[in-house]
Amino acid sequence: MKKHIYIYSPSSAVRDKASFKRGVKRLQALGHEVEIDEAALATHQRFAGDDATRLAAIHRAAASGADVALVSRGGYGLSRILPGIHYKAVAKSIDKGTQFVGLSDFTAFQMALLAKTGAVTWAGPALGEDFGTEATPDDIMEACFDDLISGQGEGTGWQLPKPPKPAAPTGPQPAINSIAGSAHDSGATGQFSIKNAMLWGGNLAMLSSLVGTPYLPAVKGGILFLEDVGEHPYRVERMLTQLLHAGVLAQQKAVIFGQFSNYKLAPHDKGFKLAGVVAWLQNQIKARVLTGLPFGHVATKVLLPVGYKTTLAVEGRDAFLLWGHQH
Amino acid sequence: MKKHIYIYSPSSAVRDKASFKRGVKRLQALGHEVEIDEAALATHQRFAGDDATRLAAIHRAAASGADVALVSRGGYGLSRILPGIHYKAVAKSIDKGTQFVGLSDFTAFQMALLAKTGAVTWAGPALGEDFGTEATPDDIMEACFDDLISGQGEGTGWQLPKPPKPAAPTGPQPAINSIAGSAHDSGATGQFSIKNAMLWGGNLAMLSSLVGTPYLPAVKGGILFLEDVGEHPYRVERMLTQLLHAGVLAQQKAVIFGQFSNYKLAPHDKGFKLAGVVAWLQNQIKARVLTGLPFGHVATKVLLPVGYKTTLAVEGRDAFLLWGHQH
Repeated sequence: MKKHIYIYSPSSAVRDKASFKRGVKRLQALGHEVEIDEAALATHQRFAGDDATRLAAIHRAAASGADVALVSRGGYGLSRILPGIHYKAVAKSIDKGTQFVGLSDFTAFQMALLAKTGAVTWAGPALGEDFGTEATPDDIMEACFDDLISGQGEGTGWQLPKPPKPAAPTGPQPAINSIAGSAHDSGATGQFSIKNAMLWGGNLAMLSSLVGTPYLPAVKGGILFLEDVGEHPYRVERMLTQLLHAGVLAQQKAVIFGQFSNYKLAPHDKGFKLAGVVAWLQNQIKARVLTGLPFGHVATKVLLPVGYKTTLAVEGRDAFLLWGHQH
Repeated sequence: MKKHIYIYSPSSAVRDKASFKRGVKRLQALGHEVEIDEAALATHQRFAGDDATRLAAIHRAAASGADVALVSRGGYGLSRILPGIHYKAVAKSIDKGTQFVGLSDFTAFQMALLAKTGAVTWAGPALGEDFGTEATPDDIMEACFDDLISGQGEGTGWQLPKPPKPAAPTGPQPAINSIAGSAHDSGATGQFSIKNAMLWGGNLAMLSSLVGTPYLPAVKGGILFLEDVGEHPYRVERMLTQLLHAGVLAQQKAVIFGQFSNYKLAPHDKGFKLAGVVAWLQNQIKARVLTGLPFGHVATKVLLPVGYKTTLAVEGRDAFLLWGHQH
């Protein structure tokens, strides 16, 4: 199904031009019409053009009439231009059928748009790293992307990780939440569902950097998903603590950890690690805490509708996020 | 003047025990009675004891009746125990004459205490890195510490850095704020003062991590000072952006950059650097933006009363923070 895909650069400058070109060619090989924003390869310092250039690129993407507006990459650059985005114009383009897709720094855009207009965007791939990879693009990512553009996607599923340290084997154990060492879930069955809750989230560093600003949506009763890259667990904990102390986490029905990749523990961590942070968090909030969502700075990533009413269903070690048809 | 100094560890575990011991000996050599908290060298994972242990250490410091409660080191650990601190008890101990001194992670404690009680603490040295250094402790740091414990301190001064890129030489240039590339200060004289404004601030990462929580004081008309270590300018900008978009910076009369140390620029930064971030910030806010304050993760640091009414005076390239007697 031929689609019109608009490529633009709202954040860091594209440095890996080979990946950029490969990504474009692969989307074309899939039969799509790929339109490249005039400033997609612009550079200003570390950015893909100065602030005005990147703002104009976002607004051109919104005016493009494309089926999908896909970021070339993440990086950094959206935070300081958030006040200059014409959110209503972007939301209008989404109403008309343009799906905005991206991740990482793009989370800032998604959160601000959700806060200002309620418009739904997609947490998903970026052009270069996902479609332009030297290896073959990831099957699951491509299938989920195809679900999005074909309008066939109804949800996604993944397997919850096994508990790293099983509790004493005194009978049937709860199959979910065990990785989080949840106390108040012990005895619970491994089956539950949370219906019609707003799915939102993305990059944790971006989310925490929006706390207290007008660009973080006030989501109550939501399902919050999180991922990050290159952040030590102590920084992850500090960011979670900000969301916790700001009251954001207490208002969610579920918190889902995606992939936290590319960080290094130090000898002096002495057992302090991400699983412990997750366990700590589970003890701070009533929300269900799940892990293992295939989303983040990794090849295998699903696409997730940010700002959309979603159902989370768990049966044993199988977890599902269901959103029905998006079109 | 013999003083009673209480050493405790509210954050990371003391790993460099040689520095710890040297620091204690140097304070003793200065004639002080040094009392070491029973858990000062405790360890739990990367922390100086588990949460309950560190909370108890803080409360023992408050109950010690010491003249100075000095942290052994910074690191990480205060964020998640902020809800457990008995702020009124700490404030009461400060009323009775105990001065709390520290930096870095300690900023979280200082901000929370200021928010909850208005009590004044000191941004200043830590035991290990400052008094326990292999080299001789820094003269200025020692003199400022002596000012604090003798009650003689009336303020501090420093020289504002020269503008890195002087404007076109078309006559007398403003001597201050030039480093920030301030537009609305051009033509201003290099002389001003801001009287009786609350001095507050500390580590930028900790400050930004408190935005939106009950632990960031709502300071209006204040003088905000900032420092950080190991944070790339893009992260510094993102943190400043959070303070900006949350409305914190618009409410200040001055923002003073201390030392930002131990970060590395990358080739792809292509001219993006801290001076540019400072210039960008000056264009976003009406507050005076100054740089060069000798405070941060560096040897030469002054002590600063956090939460105290202070006067900022600038004459040419000379800047002063004046707070009169504290005792």
